[in-house]
Amino acid sequence: MKAEIIAVGTELLLGQVVNTNATFLSEELAGLGIDVYYHSVVGDNAERLESLLELADQRSELIVLCGGLGPTEDDLTKQVTAAHVGQELVRDEVGYQNLLSFFEKRQRPMTENNLLQTLVFKEGISLQNSAGLAVGIFYTSIKGNHYLLLPGPPSELKPMFYHEVVPLLQKQFQKEEQLISRVLRFYGIGESQLVTDLADLIQGQTNPTIAPYAKPNEVTLRLTVKTTDETEAITQLDVLEAVIQERVGEFFYGYGEENSLANVVVDLLKEKQQTLTAAESLTAGAFQSALGDISGVSEVFLGGFVTYSAQTKANFLGIDRDFLEQVGTVSQACVEQMALHARKLAQTDYSVAFSGVAGPNELEGQPAGTVWIALASEQGVHSQKYHFSRDRSYIRHSAVMAGLDLLRRELLNK
Amino acid sequence: MKAEIIAVGTELLLGQVVNTNATFLSEELAGLGIDVYYHSVVGDNAERLESLLELADQRSELIVLCGGLGPTEDDLTKQVTAAHVGQELVRDEVGYQNLLSFFEKRQRPMTENNLLQTLVFKEGISLQNSAGLAVGIFYTSIKGNHYLLLPGPPSELKPMFYHEVVPLLQKQFQKEEQLISRVLRFYGIGESQLVTDLADLIQGQTNPTIAPYAKPNEVTLRLTVKTTDETEAITQLDVLEAVIQERVGEFFYGYGEENSLANVVVDLLKEKQQTLTAAESLTAGAFQSALGDISGVSEVFLGGFVTYSAQTKANFLGIDRDFLEQVGTVSQACVEQMALHARKLAQTDYSVAFSGVAGPNELEGQPAGTVWIALASEQGVHSQKYHFSRDRSYIRHSAVMAGLDLLRRELLNK
Repeated sequence: MKAEIIAVGTELLLGQVVNTNATFLSEELAGLGIDVYYHSVVGDNAERLESLLELADQRSELIVLCGGLGPTEDDLTKQVTAAHVGQELVRDEVGYQNLLSFFEKRQRPMTENNLLQTLVFKEGISLQNSAGLAVGIFYTSIKGNHYLLLPGPPSELKPMFYHEVVPLLQKQFQKEEQLISRVLRFYGIGESQLVTDLADLIQGQTNPTIAPYAKPNEVTLRLTVKTTDETEAITQLDVLEAVIQERVGEFFYGYGEENSLANVVVDLLKEKQQTLTAAESLTAGAFQSALGDISGVSEVFLGGFVTYSAQTKANFLGIDRDFLEQVGTVSQACVEQMALHARKLAQTDYSVAFSGVAGPNELEGQPAGTVWIALASEQGVHSQKYHFSRDRSYIRHSAVMAGLDLLRRELLNK
Repeated sequence: MKAEIIAVGTELLLGQVVNTNATFLSEELAGLGIDVYYHSVVGDNAERLESLLELADQRSELIVLCGGLGPTEDDLTKQVTAAHVGQELVRDEVGYQNLLSFFEKRQRPMTENNLLQTLVFKEGISLQNSAGLAVGIFYTSIKGNHYLLLPGPPSELKPMFYHEVVPLLQKQFQKEEQLISRVLRFYGIGESQLVTDLADLIQGQTNPTIAPYAKPNEVTLRLTVKTTDETEAITQLDVLEAVIQERVGEFFYGYGEENSLANVVVDLLKEKQQTLTAAESLTAGAFQSALGDISGVSEVFLGGFVTYSAQTKANFLGIDRDFLEQVGTVSQACVEQMALHARKLAQTDYSVAFSGVAGPNELEGQPAGTVWIALASEQGVHSQKYHFSRDRSYIRHSAVMAGLDLLRRELLNK
């Protein structure tokens, strides 16, 4: 199966937006055993899109288009592709009801152009959008070419791909052979180190394959077996994973594409029926917000403090002002007191505290990226000093991830 | 001048690397008044690259290739392009000396394959690489097509572009015309509504152009003028902006590609020398974390509370338990008390409080997306009820943005 990806949008050609959709789709299609041979980007221009479709027809069997399904005049992917394959555009009823209820809830008038988003090919398969209004389309032409039309915003494209497209592609292109994947997630090791540690495995890979992928502050490895025998494939994956775990298992934290460190931590807390609070300085709520994104977190997380200034560290947490003055806020002594006081006030099993320098300027004579993280429990308190780099936003994210990992390791050792 | 960008590398088609070079080059070329009409990505495959070059010859005047200039077997951009245009490859002397001194300094043996990196077109212009070893090439064919070959690593491509390519392109294609842009940011209006309100302006656009772009919970408009007279261009932008502001100015909150609602709020607080705290339930720190991302926020933001449970609303903020039991936590009464108590405890000018249902399940009989936001100041407290939709993460983000906008409007009215 030869595939290509066409992203439609003038903003991509102006360099205002990075084409991360092509990257995401390429990785996912590779995982499904579909080979991507070309990426293209074209502006919101009917003629140039049509010429790309003609070219794509000649060289690819699966043509994935993303972007241009929205309600504006720029959005013409659906219209151009419909004309290209000779399909009539008709209203998708599920998408239409979804659109009506969206505007009803917001108590805003629905403008006519929104209806465009609910149009689909008469003989295509509609792909519902759980995160937006534009309905996607899958269509197979008489010539046998497959067209997949997806929305441009990654927040809409990704869930549509996982929930609607993957089952469809698996069903449409089901061969005796199937692909079975396992995603391993790592924290605390860089992609280049991981790849170096596994160089011989990656180099010699044919089946299973090993695909590393770097994300902010973590790395995933996707192991994929092409097989006709599911039981045997799982054994193959188990054997390969065992070798990997032996080498870099110290950094492994969980399985699955949609997992996260915050998810693993919340699961562990639930399993052990333990509760958590936090006191955050430089992270300013980002640690607690990461927990707040996990559904059902209220079982284990009750609340916490954002103590950005020395004043709130004293007022909210009851830390002695003279003590703070003496030790400084970016210090082991301060961060441990923050964790202890927060735990006492919130009456939880665990408490995590953060204090450090987000940058860009230094603070109390310490460079941007210097961060102390403390963890308090009934056993007392311990803390660790970190040196993170890059910009303010990345330093804060690095601190949140380090705090989550500190807690995860503590919970696993109990 | 019609241009296109061809990135060469199988790693791009596997989704292991994002094509940020295309984004960078597009933005830079737009700034030089060169229009990019297509991006393509092709793997390390001579035949497919040759077919792309044939296509590019027909549709573009400037063909920018990036990647595939390195020393490995995969790297064949230079060889394929040389054959395509009928150029002989010869050694670049500056690049060769650079290569020798690189290996000498490192006291490592230079392997033969490295010489590939110093080969250039006999009748082309060599582009020196200040951050690596692969020499770049600029070449104009007899047919009049221009080819620009750049290295793949962004750390090499960017300095080569700035130091070698920009002066060259300016010299080769010097025009009087330049592009001048202005970005307007809007909150509280959807992309489709904005486009409807400005339909006649967008439809008739030639120069200036108007490009709308939807981001999570906001929309931007980029106005661009192609001009030979900067002063006149700014007047043109002023005139166009005035028309836009008259129609949708109520939703306008600021200028610039790298601006944000949080940024604007922090600037207003600084300007008015006012301080802020927050008490967050469903947003669980996300509002405070958005502020924490702004450098210098410590002047106006001292800290706040994450009160996720009824227990912490009572314990941290001192709200009466019986009262909470009676009114429920997702209520106007509760959220206003949260704002008032937080303001008193933090001794700030303003306080914003959030309480609602992040979902996916309902809470206290209210559906996911129901959110109350309160704002307390020395004038007292007021609050507003919202109905957000989509998933948990989007609902929380919507609440954060609504809270920022509530505060922004309050600060502007003072």
